[in-house]
Amino acid sequence: MSDAPLALPMPLDIEELRLIDAWWRAANYLNIGQIYLSANPLVREPLLVEHIKPRLLGHWGTSPGLNLIYAHMNRLISKYDLDTIYMAGPGHGGPALIANVWLEGSYTDFYPEVTRDEAGMLRLFRQFSTPGGVPSHVSVPTPGSIHEGGELGYVLLHAFGAVMDNPDLLVTAVVGDGESETGPLAGSWKSIDFINPVRDGAVLPILHLNGYKISGPTVWARHTDADLTKFFEGQGYAVAFVEGDDPMTVHRQFALVLEAAVLRIREIQADARSNGLSERPAWPLIVLRTPKGWTGPKVVDGVKIEGTFRAHQVPVSEVRTNPEHLQILEEWLHSYRPEELFDADGRLQPEIAALAPAGKRRMGSNPQANGGLLTKPLTLPDHTAFQVRFEERARERMGSTAILGAYLRDIYRANPDNFRLFCPDETNSNRLGAVFDASDRCLVSAIEPGDDHVSHDGRVMEVLSEHCCHGWLEGYTLTGRHGLFATYEAFAMIVDSMAMQHAKWIEHARRVSWRADIPSLNYLLTSTCWRNDHNGFSHQGPGFIDTIIHRKPIVARVYLPPDANCLLSVADHCLRSRNYLNLIVIDKQPQLQWLTMGEAQVHCARGAGVWPMYSSQPERPDIVLACAGDVPTQETIAAAWLLRRLAPELKVRVVNVVDLMRLCPADRHPHGMSDAEFVEIFTASTPVVFAFHGYPGVIHDLLHGRSAHERFHVRGYMEEGTTTTPFDMVVLNEMSRLHLCLDVMRYVPHSLAANDELVAHCKRLLVEHEAYIREYFDDLPEIRDWAWSD
Amino acid sequence: MSDAPLALPMPLDIEELRLIDAWWRAANYLNIGQIYLSANPLVREPLLVEHIKPRLLGHWGTSPGLNLIYAHMNRLISKYDLDTIYMAGPGHGGPALIANVWLEGSYTDFYPEVTRDEAGMLRLFRQFSTPGGVPSHVSVPTPGSIHEGGELGYVLLHAFGAVMDNPDLLVTAVVGDGESETGPLAGSWKSIDFINPVRDGAVLPILHLNGYKISGPTVWARHTDADLTKFFEGQGYAVAFVEGDDPMTVHRQFALVLEAAVLRIREIQADARSNGLSERPAWPLIVLRTPKGWTGPKVVDGVKIEGTFRAHQVPVSEVRTNPEHLQILEEWLHSYRPEELFDADGRLQPEIAALAPAGKRRMGSNPQANGGLLTKPLTLPDHTAFQVRFEERARERMGSTAILGAYLRDIYRANPDNFRLFCPDETNSNRLGAVFDASDRCLVSAIEPGDDHVSHDGRVMEVLSEHCCHGWLEGYTLTGRHGLFATYEAFAMIVDSMAMQHAKWIEHARRVSWRADIPSLNYLLTSTCWRNDHNGFSHQGPGFIDTIIHRKPIVARVYLPPDANCLLSVADHCLRSRNYLNLIVIDKQPQLQWLTMGEAQVHCARGAGVWPMYSSQPERPDIVLACAGDVPTQETIAAAWLLRRLAPELKVRVVNVVDLMRLCPADRHPHGMSDAEFVEIFTASTPVVFAFHGYPGVIHDLLHGRSAHERFHVRGYMEEGTTTTPFDMVVLNEMSRLHLCLDVMRYVPHSLAANDELVAHCKRLLVEHEAYIREYFDDLPEIRDWAWSD
Repeated sequence: MSDAPLALPMPLDIEELRLIDAWWRAANYLNIGQIYLSANPLVREPLLVEHIKPRLLGHWGTSPGLNLIYAHMNRLISKYDLDTIYMAGPGHGGPALIANVWLEGSYTDFYPEVTRDEAGMLRLFRQFSTPGGVPSHVSVPTPGSIHEGGELGYVLLHAFGAVMDNPDLLVTAVVGDGESETGPLAGSWKSIDFINPVRDGAVLPILHLNGYKISGPTVWARHTDADLTKFFEGQGYAVAFVEGDDPMTVHRQFALVLEAAVLRIREIQADARSNGLSERPAWPLIVLRTPKGWTGPKVVDGVKIEGTFRAHQVPVSEVRTNPEHLQILEEWLHSYRPEELFDADGRLQPEIAALAPAGKRRMGSNPQANGGLLTKPLTLPDHTAFQVRFEERARERMGSTAILGAYLRDIYRANPDNFRLFCPDETNSNRLGAVFDASDRCLVSAIEPGDDHVSHDGRVMEVLSEHCCHGWLEGYTLTGRHGLFATYEAFAMIVDSMAMQHAKWIEHARRVSWRADIPSLNYLLTSTCWRNDHNGFSHQGPGFIDTIIHRKPIVARVYLPPDANCLLSVADHCLRSRNYLNLIVIDKQPQLQWLTMGEAQVHCARGAGVWPMYSSQPERPDIVLACAGDVPTQETIAAAWLLRRLAPELKVRVVNVVDLMRLCPADRHPHGMSDAEFVEIFTASTPVVFAFHGYPGVIHDLLHGRSAHERFHVRGYMEEGTTTTPFDMVVLNEMSRLHLCLDVMRYVPHSLAANDELVAHCKRLLVEHEAYIREYFDDLPEIRDWAWSD
Repeated sequence: MSDAPLALPMPLDIEELRLIDAWWRAANYLNIGQIYLSANPLVREPLLVEHIKPRLLGHWGTSPGLNLIYAHMNRLISKYDLDTIYMAGPGHGGPALIANVWLEGSYTDFYPEVTRDEAGMLRLFRQFSTPGGVPSHVSVPTPGSIHEGGELGYVLLHAFGAVMDNPDLLVTAVVGDGESETGPLAGSWKSIDFINPVRDGAVLPILHLNGYKISGPTVWARHTDADLTKFFEGQGYAVAFVEGDDPMTVHRQFALVLEAAVLRIREIQADARSNGLSERPAWPLIVLRTPKGWTGPKVVDGVKIEGTFRAHQVPVSEVRTNPEHLQILEEWLHSYRPEELFDADGRLQPEIAALAPAGKRRMGSNPQANGGLLTKPLTLPDHTAFQVRFEERARERMGSTAILGAYLRDIYRANPDNFRLFCPDETNSNRLGAVFDASDRCLVSAIEPGDDHVSHDGRVMEVLSEHCCHGWLEGYTLTGRHGLFATYEAFAMIVDSMAMQHAKWIEHARRVSWRADIPSLNYLLTSTCWRNDHNGFSHQGPGFIDTIIHRKPIVARVYLPPDANCLLSVADHCLRSRNYLNLIVIDKQPQLQWLTMGEAQVHCARGAGVWPMYSSQPERPDIVLACAGDVPTQETIAAAWLLRRLAPELKVRVVNVVDLMRLCPADRHPHGMSDAEFVEIFTASTPVVFAFHGYPGVIHDLLHGRSAHERFHVRGYMEEGTTTTPFDMVVLNEMSRLHLCLDVMRYVPHSLAANDELVAHCKRLLVEHEAYIREYFDDLPEIRDWAWSD
């Protein structure tokens, strides 16, 4: 504990209370204006039908609570010079955040046409939920935001990711009670078990219980305060409650509780930074219970609105056709006394405006919410120093991800506070364990003697939750740092929707001029479908590739390095990049190594190309054997070898694709190769037998529009699998070297296909294989080697 | 409270203790045998290298705990005649469950070749984790299982879904401490807020803390009992702890705690069923803390194993090459005293075997875990009674999902305990609110006066968690009941991986002869990408179609009904079906109605066909306008109308596709149409302009292999969107009627394409549209109608 005297939260004096309430009323007023008004923004004239928008869109229910928190945080930011951003978890919080950032002036800084006067206010109102205008969720164009309020569940993950290695940052994270029902949110309270106040910033979670979702009650709202206290204390938080519907009472209580929380966080940090961290601190958390649609219409048409689900969206509708409703709206608008809040020009009164902090301390202008501004490039060691060297190609098996692990270890060392690996407890299993030479697993609770590389100071983020890993990494990169999410391939689909939403964010951000480029979100999928032979069917699924290829081309990249040197080259490229989702897929098991480092660099830079050293006749081939992915590459090269032996007259070209998007026509993806280059690699009309890591349809999807697309015959994963041998996996999915050879015989010109010996050989081996699998129980031979060598 | 005297848990007598421990030792022994032995199954001979499997696979760590629970549940099932199944949440629990169901005889009932003697035991050992053999996860072939242990996070969801409307069922659900870190698991504790003991069965969750995941400590294991108590009490549970590493002590404690929990559940149920339910009961929950790999080797090579992550998988390796390790294994096997447990023939001693309940009460034989046996068909009202009738086609707009809602309401009435709708708080928003005339929302906590159709007795399952909805419905259908999961289209991707895993389950189950057919899992995706104009970009994503089409064809079905009558016909078909994932996509907004009920039935039965009434010249067309999905159908028909007006010489055929899988070649999907039928509908060579609801690549993927595939020009969602008008959405994604007409001009034979008037008309309207959107802020005209009518 620090020896410094404890700072004590002080009650609001009457002037502070007046000003905070004024700010809050102004923000609430601006929310209503955004929903309803297309003219008469300050209701200086009697409200008429023609002042009302033709279509009423937007959500009132959550706004008063979001505004309350914003107003009070403003006071504390100024008082304590806090470095703070605001994340609004509740859906449809857009108008609230927009109102506040307009009041503080940030909005006008970013959008000068939305001036800080009556004309700007009207523009603010009219652009909201208008075609091509401003969405009802907090989103990319909202100043101060790095969290979209559309798909619920991730606000705490983004918040905690943002504060990792960001010691001065405090994120005020508002969790909606609807959102709190989602699995990802429920699983993210535990993030404090991974936050070390010595080096990380802090998150102040505020659970805002307003009782209802769209139409049903929320689970937590129907639990008692005693229940909630237990629930959060059990997870390590110190809980404080603020509850009520009288604004002045709530202001007073909330000011005390919020200030106490901020002071407690500063104490925790000061103590840890002076004395080190001995145990997980009890981080403050606030539960705020206020009515849904607070200060809105109490009753409309005899039905209760405020405090019920009916206040979720537009609390009083049909305002253009129902004069009584119009009157309710008018009274509601006047209830905030806009004439006290805004001057004759529609500017916020200076004394109220002074509540906001200045410059970059304003939550709408804090560069932490435009993390590209803060991005330091990674210091990358020379990846070629880790290269695999070999005397002879394709002889020795080496674990490619283990080699990457050594590279990542050195990245950790060179970037101690600018890089983290996120992984669901599989760093060792994925053979990346070399990183533990540079950093431990992070856990900020009791460490026990038997633990292996676990410490409070560790920066390898292992938690058995793909949601946590993805969400934390998003928050980390959105605030300008770098990282890698490594996971078992099949379980990447758990975060399909998170990948989609993050892709939308990045894509949208590229179109918002003031958003700076952020580090890419890098995925390493390993423990792949082809080599989960011992884990069985549930672990076999390459569907995350499908998820990435349908993202907007400008943000989506998919790499299938076939060996360690290619992996190093691809990883180096991805870690330098900005604004992408980079998907890298490669297995962790020892595998044959195909290219020297020099060859790999040339090959990866081009993304796809002919491999003459594995082709019997790369020029004017009778058949092209193409492949993408490590196991498909092995099967393809083995097939080429078999063909050379058994059908030496056949001219075979082997093509490997590392950068999957190069297959796309150039007008469909920035990496798409020109038709000329495509023909150079795949010829204009030669049949192609293509072995692919994922679902075959993906290749057809990408190739659409290429000349003579129908000559491509794709083998890939077709949802066949069980606990079996690696070779049986490729047989079950009909992608084995034998199947590829049979395909060659099927598709090459007829005169070349009459190789009965080859066909018989392949069929005999397949029959033998089946018998071998069938007999396995009884004779237990050694598992047959499936290497390229015969 | 019932007046019946309370039953009290009784301590184990010495004989019970001896037998339970014997069962437990036997199960543990069989676990080790599965990992290690290929001969000498009862270690009657000195253990030699040749008795050891060539490759050591399997997971020991979690097994002793799973076995302990199984043994103790056996006693209570017999004592109280419980109807109980066992769900093993921890990954790699396969060998434990297999050991127990073999001991109780269920395994041999299903697999007679695995006899209940030494030969059968050896077979059991040898088939485990062998190519083509038995996986290390609890999985489809495991008797007694409806929960796969591969992808972690869903055990409680499956358990709670299974007990809904299943009043006699008790599910013993073991939650691993690794699994407990996942988001979906963390979000599923709240399931008790939706369980009504009057009509539902019960779940007994047992959180098994053994401290470690693969290599790192678990979050919960490092929290205190006081923390855990608070965490669970805060959510409504009554928590009991059993902790220790001395088997006899743990047996005694666990027996008392488990019996108390079972009795408490029976009390809760008896009370609620006699006296009604007044408030959510405090359901029992057990936390079991025992060492990882308990009773395994304590130390190997000087390193601690038992109680650490090193016991996760194979605790002593290299047994074939390290004589010291071989000796450790031998001593370990002997430590269970197999000679006391099994007779000379390798049969379990009769007095131990008697611990198991008889017949269908055995957890491996309970029909609840083979739910197809219990499936009652739905009583389906005549769906044609809900049909839309119209005077004139395509004039009036009606909400198709609202019409489905009325049908679902009547299904609820006809099947009060055999059908449920699962929805993330969007039943009204998705326009299915008619169901509330038949049933309320379910919530088993405080109901407040302002609540709308919320009650303890409700069977409409609304929770803001797609994971809960999907997982509960899986459990519900796996035990033989029927349901529908309705959600916003974009957020279906949240459960991509759950859909994949359930598809794998169904597909695998079809290949396991004793598994009976179960009801399909039906999805209704509405609030689609094309009509989330006010919700914006985050709500626009049709990617769940991609997820379903890459499932094994035998289980995957995708339907895109274009109007209400087609939706009724498709829904009726899906609800009758078994063993599928049926995906239905249709928007909720009022939409034009195209087909009479009679036409819809014919059209849906065929799945795709020509619509002569919307074609200018269905025979020998110059161009085929194809469509799949409601908005694409509208744009296509509008394009056909425009073409008829402006290019009357052009022969246009309109084709609609309801059943997406019909596009596949017949050898790739059971619904794939023959080439002859394909040509009949799409012609052999006429250009096709195809408007599709989802990503265009999906169509190219499905069409691959069709003749002249390159003549198909697909428009669809291409990740363009924002808050805008419906018509702007189709413009942004270049799928509007105007874009389709321009495509027609691009692709029809040159002589027909010289219609300058049409091209100019379309281009002028597109320019006007853009200007209109741009100017919208300033002049606020009414949003332009985008109907078929001009």
